[in-house]
Amino acid sequence: MNLEAIDSYLSRARGRHLDSFAELLSVPSVSADPTHKQDIDACAEWLHAHLSGIGLENVTLLRSGGNPVVYADWLHAGEDQPTVLVYGHYDVQPPEPLDLWQSPPFEPSFRDGRVYARGASDNKGSFYVYLKTFEAFMETAGAMPVNVKFLIEGEEELRADHLASLVTEEGERLKADFAVVTDAGFFTADIPGISTGLRGMAAINFTLHAARDDLHSGGFGGTVPNALHAMVTLLNGLHSPEDGRVLVEGFYDSVRPLPDEVRKAWEELPFDEEEFRDSLGLTQLFGEDGYSPVERLWVRPTLELCGVWGGYQGDGVKTVIPCESHAKISCRLVPDQSPEEVLALVRRHLEKNIPPGCRLSVDFELPGCYPVVTSDKHPALDCALDALREVYGVEPVVFRAGGSVPVVEILQRILGLDSVLLGFSCPDENFHAPNEFFRLDNFDRGTRTAAHFLLGLRDRDDVKRIAGRPRSS
Amino acid sequence: MNLEAIDSYLSRARGRHLDSFAELLSVPSVSADPTHKQDIDACAEWLHAHLSGIGLENVTLLRSGGNPVVYADWLHAGEDQPTVLVYGHYDVQPPEPLDLWQSPPFEPSFRDGRVYARGASDNKGSFYVYLKTFEAFMETAGAMPVNVKFLIEGEEELRADHLASLVTEEGERLKADFAVVTDAGFFTADIPGISTGLRGMAAINFTLHAARDDLHSGGFGGTVPNALHAMVTLLNGLHSPEDGRVLVEGFYDSVRPLPDEVRKAWEELPFDEEEFRDSLGLTQLFGEDGYSPVERLWVRPTLELCGVWGGYQGDGVKTVIPCESHAKISCRLVPDQSPEEVLALVRRHLEKNIPPGCRLSVDFELPGCYPVVTSDKHPALDCALDALREVYGVEPVVFRAGGSVPVVEILQRILGLDSVLLGFSCPDENFHAPNEFFRLDNFDRGTRTAAHFLLGLRDRDDVKRIAGRPRSS
Repeated sequence: MNLEAIDSYLSRARGRHLDSFAELLSVPSVSADPTHKQDIDACAEWLHAHLSGIGLENVTLLRSGGNPVVYADWLHAGEDQPTVLVYGHYDVQPPEPLDLWQSPPFEPSFRDGRVYARGASDNKGSFYVYLKTFEAFMETAGAMPVNVKFLIEGEEELRADHLASLVTEEGERLKADFAVVTDAGFFTADIPGISTGLRGMAAINFTLHAARDDLHSGGFGGTVPNALHAMVTLLNGLHSPEDGRVLVEGFYDSVRPLPDEVRKAWEELPFDEEEFRDSLGLTQLFGEDGYSPVERLWVRPTLELCGVWGGYQGDGVKTVIPCESHAKISCRLVPDQSPEEVLALVRRHLEKNIPPGCRLSVDFELPGCYPVVTSDKHPALDCALDALREVYGVEPVVFRAGGSVPVVEILQRILGLDSVLLGFSCPDENFHAPNEFFRLDNFDRGTRTAAHFLLGLRDRDDVKRIAGRPRSS
Repeated sequence: MNLEAIDSYLSRARGRHLDSFAELLSVPSVSADPTHKQDIDACAEWLHAHLSGIGLENVTLLRSGGNPVVYADWLHAGEDQPTVLVYGHYDVQPPEPLDLWQSPPFEPSFRDGRVYARGASDNKGSFYVYLKTFEAFMETAGAMPVNVKFLIEGEEELRADHLASLVTEEGERLKADFAVVTDAGFFTADIPGISTGLRGMAAINFTLHAARDDLHSGGFGGTVPNALHAMVTLLNGLHSPEDGRVLVEGFYDSVRPLPDEVRKAWEELPFDEEEFRDSLGLTQLFGEDGYSPVERLWVRPTLELCGVWGGYQGDGVKTVIPCESHAKISCRLVPDQSPEEVLALVRRHLEKNIPPGCRLSVDFELPGCYPVVTSDKHPALDCALDALREVYGVEPVVFRAGGSVPVVEILQRILGLDSVLLGFSCPDENFHAPNEFFRLDNFDRGTRTAAHFLLGLRDRDDVKRIAGRPRSS
């Protein structure tokens, strides 16, 4: 079992590996859109076949009320060796707006050392890295350095409750010493790193109703409520114009204060505010006063408008007073907020502030997932950082992430499993946006890093759980 | 020439007349949508054939850079008789949102004594009344009591500048003593009346731009401007939350104060605020403090949000920070505001208040039309009121209207022509909204009223212009 042989195998097989990666990216496995149900199933089937083909065993499609979850394992490294649960998700975000894509979202386009496709960076690229690393060990050594279990789910972009049920039901099958969560990425495109904290998420969709029908702005304008005007008033009241704070009563009550030493440590991080701003095509950043951008991103909760609409959207002019308007809000949560608590607060705020003459209906609520912080002392984290340092030749950083990966909190809460978030995405790769891409360099170096990491875990007794309890508890 | 014969003819021909009305309503002559260009032409051709068929002469399709304008006349009443220019428009508003229609907008549905179709009330119904009245005179007496010219245009819902050019170019052809503008209606469904004032209109569409692309609310939320949040802030600043006034600087500067005696007279109008409110399915009315609903509707300018959108509008949740948001605003204007002046003020307000980190682009501006007040002393107005009183058996009211009919101001300004706004729509007939309808009772009584009105104009020297100047000047 040696890394040179693995490197050589991966170099030789690269073309074939990218072809099959393109196949995986071609499946429009959009979990949020019911019309893609067949594509979800097709993607799970594709993975079932692929995992079987590369030598994984017990390949199974598990279900717990939702989209199939792909499970597979290889447990022949010996009982003394650690067992690693590798997590990924094959579902992707909706690709809309389609007209902003330079190449179609489900026709992978290889250009400029990148592959452009919906799901390339979030998360098909990173879990595929681990599949090819597994294949490389098996093809060069006929074995893995540690026992591995793969769990690749299909509702990460949709909801976390089905995964939580499945993890509860399948606790025995998923038993491991710790998890490697591949739905993660680097600090910047140039600086590899591993995050040890994630924000939670909660979302609410609602409608304001005014008159029975849309009304003519001439015949009625000046006398009746306008559902769009009312929506603007209601939404505007969600943030303070002075300091950008969320004005929902109680919103910050459960937010854990940041220790001074952590704040100080973060000031030393190689975060270049100007470069960050320019990379997004912005003239200035924006957010809550009194916190640095990384604090606002990692340890401050947010309330964002993800969609608002009402009235006429066609060409030209339609002089209408809309009778309905719609909004989609999502919140990012930080310890110790809970999604249920935040949804209740937001709903109460909305209901208390319904503009005159309007009626509010809540169309959908998603208590998405809890915020989580993982141990920054876990020995497997050190192994992962060693691997990054070795392959990338720079000092990786330990940071937090602003996004949400529900599985980390679910594994911690239900199975007592620690997670190491070693994925190979970069924050500029347009996930959840048009023109999502994945760097092929990170496919190449990712597989070498994963191989280094897994090999480094061999014989490491300190990563093993003691008597079924997580190391960190 | 007698009204009994006309009544009898119209009763006998009713089925045939409604069949041909349904044909007219079936043509989706939507002027705002370029994909309906052929339907616009088809509607003009249908009218050309129809007008020729009922005995009108010199039937011509005029153009002045825009959709065809249908002209026709019958000038054999004698030089001593008044010449009346009858105005209507065959273009209709876009029918969207289609899913709120109970029957398809271009498949006329006759039910409950009404015909449901886009354009039924605005304005195909009312000008069709005059066509059938003309036909009835010709079929029963072989002549009209006065000279008539018809002008039926195809861009009323779109823009007024083509009509203004055409009226300038065709001044000789359009020469008349006064105009009857059929794009008008009653005070309420129960109370016939004639309006002597109309508001003007101006519209502006714009976009706010923030980051280069849509961004992930996890990876970026808390640090970057959200184009929807920015739009909400910008739009919210357009009205005072305290008193509902428009906060655009200078917006009210040109507004002509309402004389006390007019305000007092309007207090006597049979306007039932509760009934008005309930008819719209509202729990309360809404508007500028310090003015009655009819004042807000007739002599106060407004600024309405007619369309706002940005971000994700599909099912479920997409945790995106939108990089673009869009708004369509329309203003109703009152004397002595001008559309150009108001657009400049609104644009300046928007540009001065662009939220941090955003860029604004104005996508479209429509200096729609000027507000106008017509003479309430014109003898033809008395003739029209007499006809309403006679046919409907109740006292008609003279009021103002909140909507805009550009032709009234254009004929006044360019040709010095007074207008009498005798149309047969009712304010509850959902024009510009789903389920537009026209009452068949007002088709029947409308034709009798128009006949009474036109016959009453015969030999009335006092409605004639003196030496080419309008009576009212």
